[in-house]
Amino acid sequence: MKLASLKDGSRDGQLVVVSRDLAIAHHASGIAGRLQNALDDWSFTAPQLDDLYQTLNEGRARHAFPFDPAIAMAPLPRAYQWADGSAYVNHVELVRKARGAEMPPSFWTDPLMYQGGSDDLLGPRDGIVCPSEEFGIDFEAEVAVVTDDVRLGTKAADAAGRIRLLMLVNDVSLRNLIPGELAKGFGFFQSKPATAFSPVAVTPDELGDAWRDAKVHRPLVVHWNDAKVGEPNAGDDMTFSFAQLIAHVARTRNLGAGSIVGSGTVSNLDRSRGYCCIAEKRSLETIDTGSAVTPFMKYGDRVRIEMFDAHGQSIFGAIDQQVAAPPRR
Amino acid sequence: MKLASLKDGSRDGQLVVVSRDLAIAHHASGIAGRLQNALDDWSFTAPQLDDLYQTLNEGRARHAFPFDPAIAMAPLPRAYQWADGSAYVNHVELVRKARGAEMPPSFWTDPLMYQGGSDDLLGPRDGIVCPSEEFGIDFEAEVAVVTDDVRLGTKAADAAGRIRLLMLVNDVSLRNLIPGELAKGFGFFQSKPATAFSPVAVTPDELGDAWRDAKVHRPLVVHWNDAKVGEPNAGDDMTFSFAQLIAHVARTRNLGAGSIVGSGTVSNLDRSRGYCCIAEKRSLETIDTGSAVTPFMKYGDRVRIEMFDAHGQSIFGAIDQQVAAPPRR
Repeated sequence: MKLASLKDGSRDGQLVVVSRDLAIAHHASGIAGRLQNALDDWSFTAPQLDDLYQTLNEGRARHAFPFDPAIAMAPLPRAYQWADGSAYVNHVELVRKARGAEMPPSFWTDPLMYQGGSDDLLGPRDGIVCPSEEFGIDFEAEVAVVTDDVRLGTKAADAAGRIRLLMLVNDVSLRNLIPGELAKGFGFFQSKPATAFSPVAVTPDELGDAWRDAKVHRPLVVHWNDAKVGEPNAGDDMTFSFAQLIAHVARTRNLGAGSIVGSGTVSNLDRSRGYCCIAEKRSLETIDTGSAVTPFMKYGDRVRIEMFDAHGQSIFGAIDQQVAAPPRR
Repeated sequence: MKLASLKDGSRDGQLVVVSRDLAIAHHASGIAGRLQNALDDWSFTAPQLDDLYQTLNEGRARHAFPFDPAIAMAPLPRAYQWADGSAYVNHVELVRKARGAEMPPSFWTDPLMYQGGSDDLLGPRDGIVCPSEEFGIDFEAEVAVVTDDVRLGTKAADAAGRIRLLMLVNDVSLRNLIPGELAKGFGFFQSKPATAFSPVAVTPDELGDAWRDAKVHRPLVVHWNDAKVGEPNAGDDMTFSFAQLIAHVARTRNLGAGSIVGSGTVSNLDRSRGYCCIAEKRSLETIDTGSAVTPFMKYGDRVRIEMFDAHGQSIFGAIDQQVAAPPRR
């Protein structure tokens, strides 16, 4: 099934079930008011939401209305955890190579992961608001999962069964703030502003055969302004599956229901598949020619992130954001 | 006023107002069921909660009952943000010196801060559950604030007015996992398991004169098993006030209501005030004698963290935790 949270003036939005073709929606009010409520009691709410989803897809839902991604919030407009991996190690190696640094071999066996802010998650059409273009504004197109409760010590083999939903992500990054922050040793902070998510979150069964080995085997299509810049397959070259990423989090602690775990920028070894973040393009330029020429995003630039099924149907709806300066007060 | 969340089998607990002397409590059900609900609409709920608090302190509340910190959850048992600073730069300098590293001078002007996991926050009597004693289990006694909404770009001068509550913190750290994680460059992750909080959260006015310059000017008393190991004054040697820490977070993003911002391990230049984490003690030993002798915590060890007002009354109640292995399943 497919779920969204619509803007209704509240902090968490109104949970709706969305039809498979993303054309119509139906309030889930009788089942759960917010997505977090549904996740808090998933074994009880999911079957009811799924019943409504079937009815909606069959055109028999009584109070269906057109689904407008422009009024969608993030499926979880605020969450209790946003842990983002960097599972496409090929990307990490490239970025390091560009700055002349060796990548430790352990990076192929021990996942990189950082804790992101989750108190202000953006909807698919919300602006990327940044105080300065000089911060080096970049997109990062990713896939993420939403988990149920996961106990401390859960291994990868058991973690896959705790995945409840999938989403697309734009993990906005401020590249020029990163070197200074990493030098401080505490990881990203100001360099990772609010993250955006796709209009709908979907259950893994919606992906059919494309969901296997706890990876999503479909191309992730990225447009920067009018140009298609990337369509790498999210299932290729993903060194760590979502199950392995969740197990990494669970090594020393529990995960609460509704935890979001991200893949990191999708990246394929096949360079003809393009890029999911400008930093990768600039790394390739640096390696090839000695200097990066592609600039980061400017105010007014747009980025569009989407994934299609084998029939060309959008699975998650599109993230489509524009970069903007903060409003003057 | 003083607020707590009592264990009731739910994920967020039951919001109660607690008397100033921590002796009795009263359900806040008619006002807000959970602390997050109260924070989401603070200007509406706070005056009502405060009325109940006055009535409770005057002995006129109709359904008061004894307050038992043993059934308290963290005031926010799960939160949308837990951002922890390292505002006692003296501590950072010591730890670096012990490992032979220079501290960059910028650390005196640009706060260190990491994003912590906030999906599973521990109550004051919950166990510190760790899979192995070899991980180097340490406590970190800190003070934290809970904010209202804070807009991107808010400066320190305005941030102080957005602080709604104060709490004590035990930011449990797994020291032997830290060097490997910091070497990866993405900051702490597995080395920062679940964090614990004091039985009650208090509004800044509860501190009277001890709350000034957005710092808490009272000693933080730490016992490790039966020994008092520290009582540094949290208002001394705090390089960055809570207002400055919040402004640091807000430089590139909004903070949602209910965001928790921590001070980092409290540490005084006056060594006679003891220590708030074992790592600091070990750093001093290394600097003085060439090697650390004090071991980290073992299963069964306890840590108690508390703060008293000028009359000897506990302000927040005590964090009192015991280290334990995960339950066998």
